[in-house]
Amino acid sequence: MSAFDVEGMLLKNSELIEGALDDLLPKGDAAHSVIYRAMRYSALGGGKRVRPTLTLEFCRLAGGKIEAAIPYAAAIECVHTYSLIHDDLPCMDNSDERRGRPSCHVAYGEANALLAGDALLTYAFSLAAENPFADDGRNCRAVSVIANAAGFDGMIGGQVCDLIYEKSAPSFEDFMDMERGKTVELISAACALGLVAARADDGLFAAARKYAYCIGLSFQIIDDILDGDETGNTVLSYMSADEAAATARDLTEEAKSTICAYDGARSLIALADWLCGRKK
Amino acid sequence: MSAFDVEGMLLKNSELIEGALDDLLPKGDAAHSVIYRAMRYSALGGGKRVRPTLTLEFCRLAGGKIEAAIPYAAAIECVHTYSLIHDDLPCMDNSDERRGRPSCHVAYGEANALLAGDALLTYAFSLAAENPFADDGRNCRAVSVIANAAGFDGMIGGQVCDLIYEKSAPSFEDFMDMERGKTVELISAACALGLVAARADDGLFAAARKYAYCIGLSFQIIDDILDGDETGNTVLSYMSADEAAATARDLTEEAKSTICAYDGARSLIALADWLCGRKK
Repeated sequence: MSAFDVEGMLLKNSELIEGALDDLLPKGDAAHSVIYRAMRYSALGGGKRVRPTLTLEFCRLAGGKIEAAIPYAAAIECVHTYSLIHDDLPCMDNSDERRGRPSCHVAYGEANALLAGDALLTYAFSLAAENPFADDGRNCRAVSVIANAAGFDGMIGGQVCDLIYEKSAPSFEDFMDMERGKTVELISAACALGLVAARADDGLFAAARKYAYCIGLSFQIIDDILDGDETGNTVLSYMSADEAAATARDLTEEAKSTICAYDGARSLIALADWLCGRKK
Repeated sequence: MSAFDVEGMLLKNSELIEGALDDLLPKGDAAHSVIYRAMRYSALGGGKRVRPTLTLEFCRLAGGKIEAAIPYAAAIECVHTYSLIHDDLPCMDNSDERRGRPSCHVAYGEANALLAGDALLTYAFSLAAENPFADDGRNCRAVSVIANAAGFDGMIGGQVCDLIYEKSAPSFEDFMDMERGKTVELISAACALGLVAARADDGLFAAARKYAYCIGLSFQIIDDILDGDETGNTVLSYMSADEAAATARDLTEEAKSTICAYDGARSLIALADWLCGRKK
């Protein structure tokens, strides 16, 4: 069996997502069109598109029609982009750069960046609720999946913990729970959205949840290793880089084992390996 | 016919909304519970509750069950509260006070206020999509109504214009379009949500849209008159206080005439008069 071309798969999905975002994001010469430009600047600014790829691949795994998954994939990428814009703001991480370019608030000013983040978050829910290729039942569920993953006990909860733990080092358990919130929830939502689009059964939702948990944590651990900083909220505060790499590999094997019994899981298995082995 | 007790009606609706928000907003002792407290601080911090009152009264007007409208009313109030928190941030209006108390970022810090606003916006969509007293069709439509009103061509668009027009004075037409975005869209969504809950017919949606447009603009004009400042983005840059008051009264009469033919419109007619006549 030849090696699976993960990067080719990511590229193909990225092109689909990039095309959908380009179609769906606002453009034109309204008086307030600076907000359109700020939204597009950040949402179309590259990135690996891991989350929307998970949406599309889980839809394919469950035998769904890909067109029903595309608006959900665009929505989850809008939420991810909003979180990066707000994270970069001076009152948060105060990052001047994102993906090798000036961050949104450097390019468009702080107020416009705040509003562009708000607008992308808001638009994600329009996209999900108005997906013309799915019915109201699926669209409602998609909104709910996104809102819960992104909300006060999900991604935002994790970010709040990150702020708190800058001042008081957490236990390893609390640290892992922060990572669950910050990273895993949105990745899990991305997988679930593909299954919602495909009307998958409950067993597949449970498997996707476990897969997402494992690759999400592994993803974050690899980030910490590549970052190399041993201070602050990083797994390297709790274990050596070698131990962390071994943990990421264990999580990756666990992720693969939860879905390997499904036909068509090859891309998701290869993606898990690729995410664990990435160098940047 | 005795005078309608508008303040009694507002108080009764406020109690309903306050109770619902108190039930629905998160509480408890999670590691990240500071976000719960910041959300509750701003959402339960008083205010006239005009928007959720409109949701409840339009549901009643259309003969709907009030319980189906309450989650939508709570959702629109969460969106309104998020917009106030983000508006008050240092990079926006930099307001230290809101409703006679320290604004959210003064009380909880800027990062927590940013995230509390994000969380309230996100939670509004959970509330609408998961409303247990309505079906998926209504809940999807509610999400869509809220997202479009709050989004890049609605409330956010108006806020972007407000930022732009601080530097270059707009034409009267552009000024009015800014007010539409900033104020009218969310008020219009509040009215529409009551009709969604009640499964009203299209004619009533059109009447509600016009009513909302008129009371929303009147509301903003009265705000400008009470504020008294003739500099910046205010209707007083375009007309005298007397002319502005006359315009607000004309809009109020127009609002009343759009709904007076409906049975049960008495509270909404009285509300329009009350909003136009308020002193604070």
